[in-house]
Amino acid sequence: MDVLNLRWWGWGTLDQSYPLEGRTAFWPTLQAWLEIPEEWIAHETPPIPLEDISLRPPRLNPRQFSALHKLLSENAVRTDQRARIEHAYGKAYRDLVRLRAGHVPYPPDVVVYPDDEAQIASLLAWAADNDVAVIPFGGGSSVLGGVEPPADDRLIITLDLARLDRVLSVDTTSRTARIQAGATGPELEAQLNAQGFTLGHFPQSFEFSTLGGWIATRSAGQNSIGYGKIEHMTQAVRVITPIGILETKDTPATAAGPSLLQLLLGSEGTYGVITEATMRIHPLPQAQDYRGILFHSLEDSVAAFRDLMQHRQLHPAIIRLSDAPETAAYAVMGHEHHGLRRLADTLLERYLKMRGYDLTTGSTLMLLGFEGDTPWVARQWNVALEICADYGGLSLGQTVGRSWRRERYAQPYLRDTLLGHGIMVDTLETATTWSNLLNLYTAMVQAMKKSITENGGGPGYVMTHVSHAYAQGASLYSTFLGRQVADPDPLAKQAQWQAVKRATTDAILAAGGTLTHHHGIGRDHAPWLEEEIGPGGMQVLRALKSTLDPAGIMNPGILLQS
Amino acid sequence: MDVLNLRWWGWGTLDQSYPLEGRTAFWPTLQAWLEIPEEWIAHETPPIPLEDISLRPPRLNPRQFSALHKLLSENAVRTDQRARIEHAYGKAYRDLVRLRAGHVPYPPDVVVYPDDEAQIASLLAWAADNDVAVIPFGGGSSVLGGVEPPADDRLIITLDLARLDRVLSVDTTSRTARIQAGATGPELEAQLNAQGFTLGHFPQSFEFSTLGGWIATRSAGQNSIGYGKIEHMTQAVRVITPIGILETKDTPATAAGPSLLQLLLGSEGTYGVITEATMRIHPLPQAQDYRGILFHSLEDSVAAFRDLMQHRQLHPAIIRLSDAPETAAYAVMGHEHHGLRRLADTLLERYLKMRGYDLTTGSTLMLLGFEGDTPWVARQWNVALEICADYGGLSLGQTVGRSWRRERYAQPYLRDTLLGHGIMVDTLETATTWSNLLNLYTAMVQAMKKSITENGGGPGYVMTHVSHAYAQGASLYSTFLGRQVADPDPLAKQAQWQAVKRATTDAILAAGGTLTHHHGIGRDHAPWLEEEIGPGGMQVLRALKSTLDPAGIMNPGILLQS
Repeated sequence: MDVLNLRWWGWGTLDQSYPLEGRTAFWPTLQAWLEIPEEWIAHETPPIPLEDISLRPPRLNPRQFSALHKLLSENAVRTDQRARIEHAYGKAYRDLVRLRAGHVPYPPDVVVYPDDEAQIASLLAWAADNDVAVIPFGGGSSVLGGVEPPADDRLIITLDLARLDRVLSVDTTSRTARIQAGATGPELEAQLNAQGFTLGHFPQSFEFSTLGGWIATRSAGQNSIGYGKIEHMTQAVRVITPIGILETKDTPATAAGPSLLQLLLGSEGTYGVITEATMRIHPLPQAQDYRGILFHSLEDSVAAFRDLMQHRQLHPAIIRLSDAPETAAYAVMGHEHHGLRRLADTLLERYLKMRGYDLTTGSTLMLLGFEGDTPWVARQWNVALEICADYGGLSLGQTVGRSWRRERYAQPYLRDTLLGHGIMVDTLETATTWSNLLNLYTAMVQAMKKSITENGGGPGYVMTHVSHAYAQGASLYSTFLGRQVADPDPLAKQAQWQAVKRATTDAILAAGGTLTHHHGIGRDHAPWLEEEIGPGGMQVLRALKSTLDPAGIMNPGILLQS
Repeated sequence: MDVLNLRWWGWGTLDQSYPLEGRTAFWPTLQAWLEIPEEWIAHETPPIPLEDISLRPPRLNPRQFSALHKLLSENAVRTDQRARIEHAYGKAYRDLVRLRAGHVPYPPDVVVYPDDEAQIASLLAWAADNDVAVIPFGGGSSVLGGVEPPADDRLIITLDLARLDRVLSVDTTSRTARIQAGATGPELEAQLNAQGFTLGHFPQSFEFSTLGGWIATRSAGQNSIGYGKIEHMTQAVRVITPIGILETKDTPATAAGPSLLQLLLGSEGTYGVITEATMRIHPLPQAQDYRGILFHSLEDSVAAFRDLMQHRQLHPAIIRLSDAPETAAYAVMGHEHHGLRRLADTLLERYLKMRGYDLTTGSTLMLLGFEGDTPWVARQWNVALEICADYGGLSLGQTVGRSWRRERYAQPYLRDTLLGHGIMVDTLETATTWSNLLNLYTAMVQAMKKSITENGGGPGYVMTHVSHAYAQGASLYSTFLGRQVADPDPLAKQAQWQAVKRATTDAILAAGGTLTHHHGIGRDHAPWLEEEIGPGGMQVLRALKSTLDPAGIMNPGILLQS
């Protein structure tokens, strides 16, 4: 990341925010749902000014400082307050709580910006020789502590890949592109779009996350149904490890033993630095047609979702099904002139009620989208609407789709607003098979609600969507909101959040869900990894770590706790 | 494998063979192509009788024998000549050459048939304690020495999974099935078909290979374009290793670190015994419509193939493109009343010649198939035929498709006939991107032809098809034929074959192809593995091996040479 105007204490850039104008129902609704006092809404607590944060001095001696300057180019070694704070945390709730309060006890000592692979290799060799920890850093949007330095005596270098941001080549015949790992979503899409292609990977963090980060964490974009998860898009990868370069072959498939490619995907910077990848790309679609479909219940809509995914002839780009609480949130808290809120305010609402739908109680909203040639998209819609109708689904048209697309990357900005008003907000995600989906949904939501209340969060509000689906199952993604504990200590707020996280994660695993479908392990999921993959799996990961990073310098404490 | 009437010295069962009746042009054509003497055709050399093979006695002492009997059920411990010979080799050319001559210096000492996972776990524990090597055995159809015992002082047990042949459960909601690893293709398809489903995995070895073998070697079925390669079909796997059970989670996807599932896929029995897997299944298709399309040249037909694969709306079940030599072989050597041969013999041939096609010189034949609902299949054909026509493709209709399907599993039987007449025949396969495909094709075919001639094989005949394709590239699969060296010593014949294999594999890797797309590594590809995956990749595989199989008892010499 090398972005001007970055909101160091929150999401994105300072010129962007989640606008609350035109959303008159927003605060009153939230006040009712979360039972927050009037004065919390009236008063916004700003983050501490950057210069007021007392940071430990960089622990570099002059010899180390000069070594780094020799290894890297000019302006590539930063030890200033802003650089170190911008690289101290990811963008999880607990990160922002600590940042806003200026609690940054373990910032990296230095942030470096290598120009190329040779500099990275030299840097890792030097770090291994000098017992220096290295944290690869893409967009820094991890929500699991994946770029957070350990509380360690070692010197800590954060290696920012911002300067490796190019699409190196496009093979239009084979529909692949070699792309450098530090390219952000907009950077790589702009370069691919110029040649008529897209990668098709649009996670919510799209604007500020990088290809290398996506690969390192097994990311999934919002259009993963149409374009695949990052592990399906990645054809080959190059990683500079402390023991040398690992490069997998540029081939669509191979039977040459266990998959090294699939080992490096999800390695979270703990084996080395991903420098580039050969990615599968797609021609830009002629048409993108996203619509909202309203269902009477979660059961009906999940059944419709499954049918859409298992239909041999349908190939949606995106399906996202909001449960009733999330549908209500869209309907009540949206902008008056857009999307569901606009529909809710018009005469349509009476019509919907007559037909048995209710946007604020039991109905569920599906966002369904197709991308491709215009006539094909139209034919897909015909089939899809028939299936939806079988389950009582009613098309609300493209208004809802347009509204969702307008705000697809905006929600993280809202989080900063909520934090300023004493509201705890975070997301958890998992995946399972269709036959276990409603069971897992119930277990997850119940655990979340119960633990919010038990930990001083008030009644709380939990809203969930089903997305990133497959013929065999889908992911569940829940957002929870509650009142922050009054204690101004960020660690008290962190402890409150931690309790909810712990209870919910325990419940997810007990109900057969996977520990994570697309956020990764990082620091926060590491305590559960053994429950997910078993003691044998842990032995495998430990062996991989000690083989590829014998000195243990790469992103310590991530994936494996020690 | 626990099949009655097995052809221990060749392919399949004794009641089946590749019939040469009705193929009057077969021998004359082959004689002309390979320049083989008339007497080779007249005279067939039979394999040595089973009982004439002198086998070293089983190296089990009474204590070991009684230990095995305690660990396993009745009739589950075999040391008879037939069992040991049937498990001594896979089904590669070099295996059959040695078997036919009765050259079996290193048979397993004992073949065991465990009933369940508990027996397998006990057996591995006992083997690790007693330094006994264990070779997991599914169908034994490896063509790379994957089930061949090492020339080792240790006692060698071949662990045949024949008794683990059940579909344990079918989750019709999630479209998955838990299947035991020892189930052969027909066994598992019969059980799935009974519930209206298919796995969709049909390798040429289908009748005699097993799920566990497919997973262990990253197999691809003939319909891999429609249903995926085995690594795309496998949702979860269970492996009993010497250090315990590794089981991956039954989830359609996860971000919980590096993929253990994709490590176990392709592990070739060297980490443990695959006992069951959760597989993605599909409803049986209503229609299967396979047709032949004739093109003027390889270049045209590869371009059409690529367009078919990259078309957003087309979803073929199978595409297989034969180059001119393979097309000629089908046309000349086929059955008079079937397929291309029948067409060639009718007036159609004059029509084709008028249109510029020639079945015996430059034209190439594509087999293209769609599976699904009847009207959808018809619409797919409309689109596909338009694309083919753009490249000069002419539909020959369903005759060719039917003929191919009739003989889809028959060709390995022909190999036994050829071997009886002094003909060397084997296959090699690789994969690459579309942009490199013709380059790799040329390099591979030239290396093969040159090395056949240089190694006393005469002019040789090489025929190739492009199949198992992706939007990004495809596999190449070549069959080569030549005259065997006259030396009756099977090791001389093996050396001749080895020289061709070596030269071709070197050429494949030099031209950017992968070492193997779906046969695996086994013993024969192991010398090239480092060239494929690099020294770092080798270190990773060695670490995995020593972690999961610290005593080194599992399938020694496979994947890693030592």
